[in-house]
Amino acid sequence: MITTTRNLLKSVIAITLVAASLAAQQPTAPLFSQKTLDELQRVQAAALKSDRAYEWTAFLTNNIGPRFSGTPQAARAEQYVADEMRKLGLAVEMQKLKVPHWVRGEERAELVSWHGMTAGTIQKLVIKTLGGSIATPPEGIEAEVVVVENFAELERLGRERIAGKVVVFNYRFDRRLSDAGFGLEAYGQAVQYRSSGAIAAARYGAVASLVRSAGGSQNRLAHTGGMRYDPAVTKIPGAALSHEDADLIAHLAKQGPVRIRLKLGAETLPDADGHNVIADLRGSERPDEVVIVSGHLDSWDVGTGALDDAGGVAVSMQVPYILKQLGLQPKRTIRVIAYANEENGLVGGREYAARESSRLEKHFAAIESDLGVSHPVGILYAGRPEVGAAIEPILQILRSQGSGLTRRENGVGADIGPLTQRGVPSFAPWFNTRKYFDYHHTEADTFDKIDPDEMKKLAALMAVLAYALANAEGPLPR
Amino acid sequence: MITTTRNLLKSVIAITLVAASLAAQQPTAPLFSQKTLDELQRVQAAALKSDRAYEWTAFLTNNIGPRFSGTPQAARAEQYVADEMRKLGLAVEMQKLKVPHWVRGEERAELVSWHGMTAGTIQKLVIKTLGGSIATPPEGIEAEVVVVENFAELERLGRERIAGKVVVFNYRFDRRLSDAGFGLEAYGQAVQYRSSGAIAAARYGAVASLVRSAGGSQNRLAHTGGMRYDPAVTKIPGAALSHEDADLIAHLAKQGPVRIRLKLGAETLPDADGHNVIADLRGSERPDEVVIVSGHLDSWDVGTGALDDAGGVAVSMQVPYILKQLGLQPKRTIRVIAYANEENGLVGGREYAARESSRLEKHFAAIESDLGVSHPVGILYAGRPEVGAAIEPILQILRSQGSGLTRRENGVGADIGPLTQRGVPSFAPWFNTRKYFDYHHTEADTFDKIDPDEMKKLAALMAVLAYALANAEGPLPR
Repeated sequence: MITTTRNLLKSVIAITLVAASLAAQQPTAPLFSQKTLDELQRVQAAALKSDRAYEWTAFLTNNIGPRFSGTPQAARAEQYVADEMRKLGLAVEMQKLKVPHWVRGEERAELVSWHGMTAGTIQKLVIKTLGGSIATPPEGIEAEVVVVENFAELERLGRERIAGKVVVFNYRFDRRLSDAGFGLEAYGQAVQYRSSGAIAAARYGAVASLVRSAGGSQNRLAHTGGMRYDPAVTKIPGAALSHEDADLIAHLAKQGPVRIRLKLGAETLPDADGHNVIADLRGSERPDEVVIVSGHLDSWDVGTGALDDAGGVAVSMQVPYILKQLGLQPKRTIRVIAYANEENGLVGGREYAARESSRLEKHFAAIESDLGVSHPVGILYAGRPEVGAAIEPILQILRSQGSGLTRRENGVGADIGPLTQRGVPSFAPWFNTRKYFDYHHTEADTFDKIDPDEMKKLAALMAVLAYALANAEGPLPR
Repeated sequence: MITTTRNLLKSVIAITLVAASLAAQQPTAPLFSQKTLDELQRVQAAALKSDRAYEWTAFLTNNIGPRFSGTPQAARAEQYVADEMRKLGLAVEMQKLKVPHWVRGEERAELVSWHGMTAGTIQKLVIKTLGGSIATPPEGIEAEVVVVENFAELERLGRERIAGKVVVFNYRFDRRLSDAGFGLEAYGQAVQYRSSGAIAAARYGAVASLVRSAGGSQNRLAHTGGMRYDPAVTKIPGAALSHEDADLIAHLAKQGPVRIRLKLGAETLPDADGHNVIADLRGSERPDEVVIVSGHLDSWDVGTGALDDAGGVAVSMQVPYILKQLGLQPKRTIRVIAYANEENGLVGGREYAARESSRLEKHFAAIESDLGVSHPVGILYAGRPEVGAAIEPILQILRSQGSGLTRRENGVGADIGPLTQRGVPSFAPWFNTRKYFDYHHTEADTFDKIDPDEMKKLAALMAVLAYALANAEGPLPR
């Protein structure tokens, strides 16, 4: 609210400057030529007919399987993607990396004592060790549990009530938010307990940290994912409980003391070799300028990572495939990147950005598909507000396939995040995430979860967006 | 269609007989007195307010846990139900039984060879040994798989293609039928492969039988359940594959030979002690006539059997609870039965009927709730067609809670089946079974799957139906 003449004057100047700036950004020519727009219609039509991405996903998930960092399957998948891109005539580079090599090992948890128990029995719990966790001692840990709903309750209970116990963070994934289509937002709220629960619990002397799953599954599946340690805080083991088992413990803990036995055999081995697979479809006019299309090739070890993120890699691979099929060469280089180690380290994304730090201005745009594989509702982007208007002609084309919305976010993909943070206009397919987190980071993230027709729409969006940006007549606002 | 005078005459006689018969069946007085109908309104209102069944279910599932035949938890649950019924002042009898005692033991399966595999890797499969299966040899079985869609394909392939192999029955649970509300029918179609797949496969020399899950879960859960052997056919081990793993194997088997390693540690121990818990609320006018309200107390060993069937037992227990609360004594005896060993033997139901074989005419009606715990849409019954009309006044009352339909079936509950077959009018709550088979016989059949408000409607239906039948002014058509 303007309260003084001086402020009023300031505001008028500011408004004038914004107007001038907007006028300056107004491209004298449209960002996309009529020829490009016509070609985009052909790109879209071809992608909507192609099964190529679906077939690649089948091979990555069914024939190769889980592709966790440091495993032979991860290495095999890198070679497979490189080979497939070479077959298309792309220039392929394998960016060498050292990636974390964590091994899950045995994981077992059971209740050994609770109110009303039947003598001599236990209750088995469904858990998944969190990525990066240390092991328990070989004989396991047996201790009483303390259930807290959130960090505030942990703090309130304090060391006296927490020391020597197993903390259960019972923060609930918001199913109503997820059912409304905002699973990503529900996940964003819950995931902090997974990430830093063990640090918080250890500060009060807990001997282990169990978190209610940060995903939406109500099918007795625990949701794995990465966790962090703080060098200044004692490391304690961390695992996720299924929704049902968290409910069980919370229910019993209200009735009396509950004791748990926990045995985790997790191990962190020396860093392993890994590679970002980088495949260039060279641009005809500005080959040194790059539009990235990407996903991450590694998956968690529990499912086969079809939704997260074989499908994202496959729809990226399909961009040059469709252009080759149509005989179209982009003006800028389209660079397919299959990132390594998104799940438990983010080494691939960080190392790529580090290597390219002197060439970031040549990165015209970066696209990543890592929020599911289903019918996209539109495009997420991170960058200047004006980008939304700039890509409107692309949205016009995508509207015919039911994908014509935009939304702006701070970050749109973990692997391209380091590029986004340094000003590279960044894009991602945007989904209704109602069901994605029912499968995400569980055994149930498998090939059958992908609908081939929905995947075609995703692949079409990727190809249209990438080709449009690669052929843009001028720069994007940045 | 009538084509001759003789046939016409026959038809006229037939029609006259039917009319006479209907007239004879027409009760001179209405089946339910106005006093009873007024009391039923009170019974319904009280049940719709009561949490008692929900609380009993919580204890059975959370505090006791899985209640598989032969386990300490099964015995504990029997004592618990007996104690709770005694607390209500009912006369409790424990019918001694010998029940099968099968132990699951270790269960592991993995693909060890397939087209495009990464050297040195395997693919873990999610399986559940079928109840009653024999073990594999201690070192496991390793063999090639043969995928068949149904029994006809097995027969077509014949011994030459089947001998020495692991047969995968890939018959798909009909999700569209289930999504339309007919999960029970979808299950009925699929379950034959689980029941008798091992017999069929062994006839052609197979070394093991794997069936695609007979339930609807698409969350990497395998669906356990009973299987049969034929004394004339070699016994081979049997297990269920998750939907996803069946898809995986079918997909890979189209590309080349697939080899599997299977290790099952199942064991059948000597029969164990078990009991039907039989609790009578004595009738005021015809105490020797009995209306049964029942469910089965045993569960599979994998979940905690909340839907199948702790909830069914609990809503049966709640019938006398509500009547006591209202100070109502039924004219006939209401008999609560918590049957033992429904899941893997059906000993409880069979032995009860055998014991009562000379008193079946004193069994006025039998009710069992074992098709889920959710909002009932009405009443299933087995018996003469006229029963539908006879219970119409009950349906009128239930309509106010959204449960006013009837459907007739041959059998309506496994435990009361032997009574049904011998003419006892039999009833069950009837559900939309869209979701029930997503959880049924899996780890995910847990307490959280029950909505307390829906359970109240189920409990109200049970109480209204049981009290109405117990107070009927005349016999049901039988």
